[in-house]
Amino acid sequence: MQSTALEKQLNFLREIDRLKSVVRQSPLLDKSRKENSAEHSWHLAMYALLLSEYASGPVDTNRVLRMLLIHDIVEIDVGDFPIHGGSSAELQAEQEATAAARLFGLLPQQQGDELLALWQEFERAESEDAKFAKALDRFQPLLINVVTGGGTWTENGVSLEQVFSRYGPVIKRGAPLLWSVCEKWVTQHFAAGQV
Amino acid sequence: MQSTALEKQLNFLREIDRLKSVVRQSPLLDKSRKENSAEHSWHLAMYALLLSEYASGPVDTNRVLRMLLIHDIVEIDVGDFPIHGGSSAELQAEQEATAAARLFGLLPQQQGDELLALWQEFERAESEDAKFAKALDRFQPLLINVVTGGGTWTENGVSLEQVFSRYGPVIKRGAPLLWSVCEKWVTQHFAAGQV
Repeated sequence: MQSTALEKQLNFLREIDRLKSVVRQSPLLDKSRKENSAEHSWHLAMYALLLSEYASGPVDTNRVLRMLLIHDIVEIDVGDFPIHGGSSAELQAEQEATAAARLFGLLPQQQGDELLALWQEFERAESEDAKFAKALDRFQPLLINVVTGGGTWTENGVSLEQVFSRYGPVIKRGAPLLWSVCEKWVTQHFAAGQV
Repeated sequence: MQSTALEKQLNFLREIDRLKSVVRQSPLLDKSRKENSAEHSWHLAMYALLLSEYASGPVDTNRVLRMLLIHDIVEIDVGDFPIHGGSSAELQAEQEATAAARLFGLLPQQQGDELLALWQEFERAESEDAKFAKALDRFQPLLINVVTGGGTWTENGVSLEQVFSRYGPVIKRGAPLLWSVCEKWVTQHFAAGQV
């Protein structure tokens, strides 16, 4: 028996409930627990809603919002690859592409193809929308680390130079003004010896 | 010293991190814990992204998405008012309006006014966009209860008639086809004695 469009959509919406159980490295700002990828995605969508004036080029906020809502859904199958985890970028890309095909493939064809294309655009990080979305995806955990006095930097013994090289290029490319603020925060953070 | 626009925006984005600690009555689908309002908001945005073809009238999906991203932010100040909690609608509306003024008031004036107006539109539930957003906000917890075999209905001893009266009008008004599916699920659920 063939599933109707609605059955497929509801099946997908049930499946992605699991993103609420994918735990990231970053803590909540009150340090009560680690953040999960579903609430991270919500928070990033709010960043996009409010900060698009700082994008390096003209962006379509509605597309950026959608990209950020779906950007981590692949983690349901492959988990979160932490920025300071030293994992292979190639292996990660391969596993995530398989996950994207399976998950977006649950949807009615056209809808699934559209979301898959949007996710691929995000991953390629070439369009103005994707560059800005990627910048926010780096900016949010950086802000968490600054506000919580170290966060994943302290846990992983990350240096000032590593912060600059792991966050700088992506944030600067998509949101240069936000990076200039980050530079000050990060410099102050490490100068204060909070490593 | 006056705050810059960016300082205000980042202050707001920090403040709303607290939505991740507002716990709702509904469980995750795997019943491992209760859902929080931030991940609920993400999930609802995904519902809007995928299901707008079932809206009762013409909707702007981008506006519905934004409404759903911000619809629960007031809970940071006043907490979640459960649908089966028997709380006073008037008191709730008053407390939430005060919270909305404080929270959206953290933003630069124009941005704050726009989000406040969008939240008020959602609360009034008169526009096509708001009716559909409200319908999804009822549909998602109903789906959770059906999938988890009772959820908040079992916990609160809610009857078939109460489900029909507490969910039906809102879902039917904004997304009649989704309500017709709900009617079947709910009838089957209660017929199976899973109360």
